[in-house]
Amino acid sequence: MTDPRTAYLELLRRSREIALLGSCSAVLSWDQQTFMPPAGTTFRGEQLAFLAGLSHQKATDPLLGELLTIVESSELMADPSSVEAGNIRELRHHYDRAVKLPQRLVEELARVTTLAQQIWQEARATNDFRLFQPHLEQILALKREEADAIGFTDQRYDALLDEYEPGLSTKTLQILFADLTAQLVPLIQRIQDCGRQPRREIFQREFPADRQRWFAESAAAAIGFDFQAGRLDTSTHPFCSGFGPGDCRITTRYNPHCFSEAFFSVLHEAGHGMYEQGLSAEQFGTPSGSYCSLGIHESQSRLWENQVGRSEPFWEHFYPRLQQAFPTALRDVSRQEFYFAINEIRPSYIRVEADEATYNLHIVLRFEVELDLLSGNLAVTDLPAAWNDRFRTMFGMMPTSDREGCLQDVHWSFGGIGYFPTYTLGNLYAAQFMEAAHQALPELNEEFRRGIFSSLKFWLSEKIYRHGRRFRAATLCRDATHQELTAKPFLKYLHGKAASVYNVC
Amino acid sequence: MTDPRTAYLELLRRSREIALLGSCSAVLSWDQQTFMPPAGTTFRGEQLAFLAGLSHQKATDPLLGELLTIVESSELMADPSSVEAGNIRELRHHYDRAVKLPQRLVEELARVTTLAQQIWQEARATNDFRLFQPHLEQILALKREEADAIGFTDQRYDALLDEYEPGLSTKTLQILFADLTAQLVPLIQRIQDCGRQPRREIFQREFPADRQRWFAESAAAAIGFDFQAGRLDTSTHPFCSGFGPGDCRITTRYNPHCFSEAFFSVLHEAGHGMYEQGLSAEQFGTPSGSYCSLGIHESQSRLWENQVGRSEPFWEHFYPRLQQAFPTALRDVSRQEFYFAINEIRPSYIRVEADEATYNLHIVLRFEVELDLLSGNLAVTDLPAAWNDRFRTMFGMMPTSDREGCLQDVHWSFGGIGYFPTYTLGNLYAAQFMEAAHQALPELNEEFRRGIFSSLKFWLSEKIYRHGRRFRAATLCRDATHQELTAKPFLKYLHGKAASVYNVC
Repeated sequence: MTDPRTAYLELLRRSREIALLGSCSAVLSWDQQTFMPPAGTTFRGEQLAFLAGLSHQKATDPLLGELLTIVESSELMADPSSVEAGNIRELRHHYDRAVKLPQRLVEELARVTTLAQQIWQEARATNDFRLFQPHLEQILALKREEADAIGFTDQRYDALLDEYEPGLSTKTLQILFADLTAQLVPLIQRIQDCGRQPRREIFQREFPADRQRWFAESAAAAIGFDFQAGRLDTSTHPFCSGFGPGDCRITTRYNPHCFSEAFFSVLHEAGHGMYEQGLSAEQFGTPSGSYCSLGIHESQSRLWENQVGRSEPFWEHFYPRLQQAFPTALRDVSRQEFYFAINEIRPSYIRVEADEATYNLHIVLRFEVELDLLSGNLAVTDLPAAWNDRFRTMFGMMPTSDREGCLQDVHWSFGGIGYFPTYTLGNLYAAQFMEAAHQALPELNEEFRRGIFSSLKFWLSEKIYRHGRRFRAATLCRDATHQELTAKPFLKYLHGKAASVYNVC
Repeated sequence: MTDPRTAYLELLRRSREIALLGSCSAVLSWDQQTFMPPAGTTFRGEQLAFLAGLSHQKATDPLLGELLTIVESSELMADPSSVEAGNIRELRHHYDRAVKLPQRLVEELARVTTLAQQIWQEARATNDFRLFQPHLEQILALKREEADAIGFTDQRYDALLDEYEPGLSTKTLQILFADLTAQLVPLIQRIQDCGRQPRREIFQREFPADRQRWFAESAAAAIGFDFQAGRLDTSTHPFCSGFGPGDCRITTRYNPHCFSEAFFSVLHEAGHGMYEQGLSAEQFGTPSGSYCSLGIHESQSRLWENQVGRSEPFWEHFYPRLQQAFPTALRDVSRQEFYFAINEIRPSYIRVEADEATYNLHIVLRFEVELDLLSGNLAVTDLPAAWNDRFRTMFGMMPTSDREGCLQDVHWSFGGIGYFPTYTLGNLYAAQFMEAAHQALPELNEEFRRGIFSSLKFWLSEKIYRHGRRFRAATLCRDATHQELTAKPFLKYLHGKAASVYNVC
């Protein structure tokens, strides 16, 4: 086993085993959210816990550490951009995170967050922050412990962010987000001041669920989601789950009185799904066959949902078809009116209902609050007031309840501290990728007008999908766009949208 | 670990782990047959093979053998009818079967049968037995090896039968089946000779699939299948899969031009499902929380499908509702005509399409053929001719192709030698249980007429469901019916049916 080649192959074999366990859990979780009968909940929890235990056992096997030591000092690392070096780098990253966490901490986090998610649901339903408060305090204490166990050089938050966006620093985020906020806030203000409004009621007309499904499914197929290797089902919260080669499931929910909800969530999930479907099947279960980071994953969903799905060329193709699918609801609605309605920019309280501009202020707020909570600058008991103050400063309006404020998201209850920023990273990466794609493929808009999306998908496949996690996000971004991650393309995109929709610059 | 109590608990813990792995495989298999996209096949195979490997590893862990030795010589075995003694007896049985098979044989059987199933499909589709012949020869050679590795005292077939119907001997089967055939053949002949025929065309009218689903689902719920803890979906071949406590899935397929296909298969699978749902949740993963044998499992499906579902009292309740559900198709069909049509007894070539009387001749034929193939008295090359000869002797007609003959069933291609008899055992047990239930609950038919099925379900729960595998099938049968397994109640039932439907005694 001292031969580095042999050690490397054994590492990959073990990595694939862990991935197979994960893929079984993915099937079980998908089923839980789509078809599982209600009485199955407890037992499904036992199945998932058992698989998670097996997976943790395999991920922390000391032999992995020994194998890593052998390959790290070998010629396999000679070229840092090789598949082998990328795999080894990421396997080490994953192994270190896994073994640095004491078993006791892992178990306590699991226990505390399982309960906290239940309590959070209750707290949100009854608008009672005090119910959730002690649980959030416990979670923060454990996440501080986690960050300390993982280790960091600059800020504690780095260690948590690193789980979702490996290699990105809090410092970089702070600079990016400051830039973004500085331009977003006045832009949104100018839009509000201009006084123009779309016909909002057109979305609240009758859009039968089965027709919505049919239309969304055909649009997802048109942009390139492969239904031979995937499905669209219904669940309470839309999601995408790539089980493995040839099988990726996406879900949505249908509101017969709101067309845009399901449709854009299907484009979003199909974007995630196309990324999963585009990963290398041969490299399944190794880092090179896995998604790069949550920010990059989210860029793929946002790109299709917003950059493509809310563009004029897209609807030049699809709007006549949409009118045919819903003749009664859309007979008296022009394409321009529809385009305005799907691109309305307007401050609102709830993140998941926000437009593509104000959405990012929701994220910046959460990022800042997380930093303060983790450092202890903000006590959990003061969270509701602090949230509302910041919200007023950023959005110019004040939540009237914690359900509309700091209780709205599930993330903290499952311990997802450091997760929110990846949503806005997705928006920034998406705009940056799209700008580069338009430069490389000047015919793109013309193709969209004719309902052709294959050039873009092929470009994404070349630049992003096929690399998996071989490169870190920063490298992937630089290679694909010839510049570092920056908010400029996104801001340019939003200014263009504001100009075309609101006549505001 | 020398303390027998501790050893016993550790045995149960390990048994539950193996069952949890099995339950994950069950979810994946169900998904494969209901919702999985076509391109997912290869990867699903990898997932299932991986789980099977983990399970085999755990099932053959030598520590299990050591733990068994400790508990077997302890006071836990003092009362052979205790849960503990039952669990230990069955865990030993399972462990011995698992470790007696050499790893090489297990892998070769997996490899050979995976290919053979593919080839069998092709052979059946093209009606070309010679394609399948070498594969069946290989399978038989491996199954002989398997039987020899397991060991037997009387006949080789015993060792194979023991996998599906633990404790039952080939000798007993031969006596039972001889009895059965001796009376069945002349009874069927008398029915054919009487010349009466039902209006067969009534089933070929328009029965829209969605209405069929609705009606079958409501009937399954009425007899006691719990949809809070289960689902009904669509698959190519109907099946039932109990994942674990609170979650049991059944499937069927709908033919809009044949009402009886889906309806009786739903009753059948719901019968299996109620058994699974009635197993002890606390004892999940241990023998006492698992089904007793395939024959007993089948008895639960046949009981609801035939004994109840083709009875007059059942349709006195359901027929007016069926007419309401399908007013056009059934307007001019009386309940008596309908009852005749669902109880037609008529020889046919295909087992799965056979009525409840002739069905058993199909099984007896397969049993005799299997015995001869295994012993070598019948060469595989002579199988088609031997099949057809026997068929003519038993049914008075001759298959015109091997698709209608020895190529019709999948079982041999997956190595299921010794499996077929459990189907007829199910019929015999079902009749014997039902006779005992009627004796214990004289109001039963009156309840069925009013659409009440809970007394019967409760009786089955008491006598069968809740015991799991604590007792062997022979004991379970004796305790529930106060007699040994016998063909008499089934023959009595069939003679009654023949009298009521055909006026033939």
